[in-house]
Amino acid sequence: MAESFVNAFAAIKAGGPLEPWSFERGALGPQEVDIDVTHCGVCHTDLHLLDNDFGITAYPFVPGHEAVGLVKAIGADVTHLTLGQRVGVGWQRGSCGECEWCGRGLQNLCAKSRPTCLAGYGGFARSLCVDSYFGIPIPDGLDSAIAAPMLCAGITVYSPLRRYLRPASRVGIVGIGGLGHLAIQFARAMGAEVTAISTTQDKAAEARRFGAHHFVASTDPEQMKKLAGSLDLLIDTATANLDWSAYLATLRQNGVFCIVGGPQGPVVLPVLQMIFGQYTFAASMIGPPSEIEEMFRFAALHDIRTAVEIVPMDQANGAMAKVRSNKARYRMVLTT
Amino acid sequence: MAESFVNAFAAIKAGGPLEPWSFERGALGPQEVDIDVTHCGVCHTDLHLLDNDFGITAYPFVPGHEAVGLVKAIGADVTHLTLGQRVGVGWQRGSCGECEWCGRGLQNLCAKSRPTCLAGYGGFARSLCVDSYFGIPIPDGLDSAIAAPMLCAGITVYSPLRRYLRPASRVGIVGIGGLGHLAIQFARAMGAEVTAISTTQDKAAEARRFGAHHFVASTDPEQMKKLAGSLDLLIDTATANLDWSAYLATLRQNGVFCIVGGPQGPVVLPVLQMIFGQYTFAASMIGPPSEIEEMFRFAALHDIRTAVEIVPMDQANGAMAKVRSNKARYRMVLTT
Repeated sequence: MAESFVNAFAAIKAGGPLEPWSFERGALGPQEVDIDVTHCGVCHTDLHLLDNDFGITAYPFVPGHEAVGLVKAIGADVTHLTLGQRVGVGWQRGSCGECEWCGRGLQNLCAKSRPTCLAGYGGFARSLCVDSYFGIPIPDGLDSAIAAPMLCAGITVYSPLRRYLRPASRVGIVGIGGLGHLAIQFARAMGAEVTAISTTQDKAAEARRFGAHHFVASTDPEQMKKLAGSLDLLIDTATANLDWSAYLATLRQNGVFCIVGGPQGPVVLPVLQMIFGQYTFAASMIGPPSEIEEMFRFAALHDIRTAVEIVPMDQANGAMAKVRSNKARYRMVLTT
Repeated sequence: MAESFVNAFAAIKAGGPLEPWSFERGALGPQEVDIDVTHCGVCHTDLHLLDNDFGITAYPFVPGHEAVGLVKAIGADVTHLTLGQRVGVGWQRGSCGECEWCGRGLQNLCAKSRPTCLAGYGGFARSLCVDSYFGIPIPDGLDSAIAAPMLCAGITVYSPLRRYLRPASRVGIVGIGGLGHLAIQFARAMGAEVTAISTTQDKAAEARRFGAHHFVASTDPEQMKKLAGSLDLLIDTATANLDWSAYLATLRQNGVFCIVGGPQGPVVLPVLQMIFGQYTFAASMIGPPSEIEEMFRFAALHDIRTAVEIVPMDQANGAMAKVRSNKARYRMVLTT
């Protein structure tokens, strides 16, 4: 049955290039949907997994956890999705559905979470079969290429912004990349006063175009000094370690410093500074399907646009290389 | 005018013993109250200040920021306190009254906060003159000796418990001393499931007497292992640094780890553990007058009792020595 074979791009071994490869799709479960992938974003985490940086990758490895496509088959028990409907799949392809966190609608915290490209083959493929609850409907107003990167990069910043931001919050976004350029747009649309913080002055104009009110080059001590004690919330999207104490000093009393980008760490916090500022240091882990759906609605409402470079999926290696060298502006999206 | 001289106990130089000493009280300001001190708790921070550990102590130094007494004089503009009323003074004797934080009722975050024994002479004295707003009424149901240590030790744990605890929360209290023994009682009365965590088994029986449902000796790897992934909230009252990663591991997903006791630090947090647990690491800084007043009402309602050892104020040096050697069970209180 040729139809049950799925064409994909896989790394056969750690660090290896992506090669055309196919696998046999199992029978569709009663709660599953099969999705005809049209777009898939490239995330820095795909590189970590391809390189087996966390020691948890199985090979052949098919990357891709920012997939958008059309529902082409529906399990017997699925009632909330229809054939042909446009949906997206992010970091998760499933969860246990039974634990406290799933029950509370915080499936991102489920201990039995099934990551899209670890508990199966990812979105660098012609089709993707997932638990129907993790095939998230995309509203008409949102282009597929713009929606795809929101499924991981977007929700990773949307979720903590939604949790900690208040109207009129003074928000700093550290790092202007795939996550950061979306964070600036979300924070601006949520009503915050937004400061973009990047290592060099290069991205100042683009940061302002994304909606930042202010721009700070973190390598300029004078600019950092002016920022001291001014922010209510700092979202760190960077993958490099920061001078933690210097960034804490940018917070106002009661301020929140949230990491999402996964610096190598460790994070080192001076105690007296934390206590006298009554600071909170938080970490955030993607977001549950309900928040992804909300984010899509918010993005469509406010015309938030991922800055994407679209290339055919057979150029996946080139796209991955561009992400690896931090040259994507700001997210690579593959199309089938 | 002999009446304007206040007898006190002061250290004349850093680390020096407390000696009888007197100072001239200035004119009472229109917003001030003068308090006849009857009780004053001894806090570990008094030792730090006496020793000039933070480099901010002026001498002669009069310790004491857990003072209870009776109002004996009232400034011309004070309308909410009456002569003879029983009030307490904690870490703060004043704040600017004009900034955003004062306006929001979070005077503990005021940048111009006036610490009781730094911006004046503290409570190891016959009388104490403070901004009337920081002379906090004590309800009838609460003994002065029991109320006094709540003004710093109590509010330091009450405030974060009130912020983070939910009914049925599984709360761990690290360190069973002046702060911890109150935290156990507060958390129990707030409806939480309480685990007391101490370095050795010695305090197990007393922790249970204070209301802990469970006791864990942190030096026993087996007991710590059983605690893994079980707590919603961890309040660290200890002054020693912890194995931060091991304590983070006691949290459930979305858990909060809050320091209040001022370990030397720095706090070192592994990034992936923080993100995958979606943990929050917080610090808390005493609490504002409104929360102190609420705490007193809560303590009276639930018959929460500071375990105190009461000694006359002229034995202040002995009391300080007992605190220094961690032999206070659980709070020393001086009486005049």
